[in-house]
Amino acid sequence: MIRVGIAGYGNIGRGVEAAVTHAQDMELVAVFSRRDPATVQTVTGVPVVAYDKIGECAGDIDVVIICGGSATDLPWMTPELAAKFNVIDSFDNHHHIPEHFAKVNEAASASGKVGIISCGWDPGYFSLARILADSALPEGDSYTFWGRGVSQGHSDAIRRIEGVKDARQYTVPVEAALESVRNNEHPEFTARQMHLRECWVVAEDGADKAAIEEAIKTMPDYFEPYDTTVTFITQEELDRDHSGLPHGGSVIRSGRTGFDREFNNTVEFTLNLDSNPFFTSSILVAAARAAYRMNQEGQSGAKTLFDVPPAYLSHHTREELLAHML
Amino acid sequence: MIRVGIAGYGNIGRGVEAAVTHAQDMELVAVFSRRDPATVQTVTGVPVVAYDKIGECAGDIDVVIICGGSATDLPWMTPELAAKFNVIDSFDNHHHIPEHFAKVNEAASASGKVGIISCGWDPGYFSLARILADSALPEGDSYTFWGRGVSQGHSDAIRRIEGVKDARQYTVPVEAALESVRNNEHPEFTARQMHLRECWVVAEDGADKAAIEEAIKTMPDYFEPYDTTVTFITQEELDRDHSGLPHGGSVIRSGRTGFDREFNNTVEFTLNLDSNPFFTSSILVAAARAAYRMNQEGQSGAKTLFDVPPAYLSHHTREELLAHML
Repeated sequence: MIRVGIAGYGNIGRGVEAAVTHAQDMELVAVFSRRDPATVQTVTGVPVVAYDKIGECAGDIDVVIICGGSATDLPWMTPELAAKFNVIDSFDNHHHIPEHFAKVNEAASASGKVGIISCGWDPGYFSLARILADSALPEGDSYTFWGRGVSQGHSDAIRRIEGVKDARQYTVPVEAALESVRNNEHPEFTARQMHLRECWVVAEDGADKAAIEEAIKTMPDYFEPYDTTVTFITQEELDRDHSGLPHGGSVIRSGRTGFDREFNNTVEFTLNLDSNPFFTSSILVAAARAAYRMNQEGQSGAKTLFDVPPAYLSHHTREELLAHML
Repeated sequence: MIRVGIAGYGNIGRGVEAAVTHAQDMELVAVFSRRDPATVQTVTGVPVVAYDKIGECAGDIDVVIICGGSATDLPWMTPELAAKFNVIDSFDNHHHIPEHFAKVNEAASASGKVGIISCGWDPGYFSLARILADSALPEGDSYTFWGRGVSQGHSDAIRRIEGVKDARQYTVPVEAALESVRNNEHPEFTARQMHLRECWVVAEDGADKAAIEEAIKTMPDYFEPYDTTVTFITQEELDRDHSGLPHGGSVIRSGRTGFDREFNNTVEFTLNLDSNPFFTSSILVAAARAAYRMNQEGQSGAKTLFDVPPAYLSHHTREELLAHML
């Protein structure tokens, strides 16, 4: 049994708790939280331990899955914990990945542990789709479409507008853009041409709805570069119809083969997820299995899913894989 | 530069010739053929050498990509060549993979070389889609749909019927089956419910077309278990409209996450290929890069794509991968 610890207990932490509980080759040892453990109740009853005490558990845990945020938690937590544990994170700040990788690599190389970073679905499985498609079709263009799904960052941005009580934002791929890519037209897109932004907003009583809509649609970076729809609904409607966190998307590569590049090909990888955090958590757990195995065979340092032989992610034996999955 | 040899020069061999020619980190040393080399002309002018002489070239070649058939060539060629070279094949006889793996493993372990078997798109990339989806969604069902595309085995089977001059068979997934899987209905399918078989047939002058159609539709294993359409056309029409070898398909996994498996998810990997053999060849070439690198770092024995860290398939540097593809 692979002994797993969870550091951080939000949506992702709970998702990891569920996935580890269902995994037959793993056991969940503890959740580590920076909150007062007495105030944190886990779903399965697994013990909650103060984050400060995690170092004392080094002998009892094979892998720590770090379930913090990429903005303020993971940049220090992953290197700190890699000094004592095999670690997994879902660091998703694409621009800072090389820097994060370097810090984790330094810590994990020194400790002789493995740290696999950026193990969500993007970065993560979408990254695998990109590298596999690019390797088979070196001459071509890759596209990533997100949605239809809830962007928590964009929902938060709407909530910060004066007069907004609650909000939910869906990122939606433009159907015509998907079709153009699939038709091997190799388009060059603006942001507006690839995605729509659909906003469901609950206004405070007496708030100026026209002003809220204007504030959303003109918000730089978040909404201004996109065609954005704003619909005002009641809190009850929001809670009833928009309480989930679905997401998904597609990585599509269109590339040519042949002596004269005469053959068109598309490789497409698509996800449709009822729950974004629970699927992310499932990938984190598969990556934890891989980190444990890689470390067992003597590997150390920072890794990404690009470095992981896919068999290491699977709970199936080599014989099962050869006979049934190849 | 990785020095590549090609063993066997049919559709796949020519596809590998094209892909290696376009790869910036590889050079094609020679094509090895069991035919009289004087009768074989390569597209790019790369020299043709008698297969019997391949052993003499061991010092000049880093990887041999074996482009023979799974029925009669690969079972002996891959083990034979693995005794002297890093080798790649596209062995696709699913039932015999464990046995083939064992033979290649024995030869490659003894020689200290790497042999990666079954590197096409199924087995191959579809296998990777299956293992990645299964690892993220251990509780669920996986489905593989082929087509729309030309099945050469089924086309050959039609051509063997008396009175048939030429034929082309397309395997076509049933749209309703795809939809049911994507809707997380977890269906159990018969063969007939998943795929249609569409036959385009050129009859000999004076042949009994009704008898041909009957012979096709009642052919055990090949056509009887499917809804099959037979359309008679002229040789000119067949040559004009059906001369290509397009193929593709989808691996779809529908699986649940959550403490009570309350969330549905689908992972879908789809290929649309103008040329089946040229895409297969592109994967063989990416796998050749991986075999070379794995052997350089001291690995040996038989492998599949399940054992290959995806970064090894890519011509991009680690820095490029972290910065742009993760």
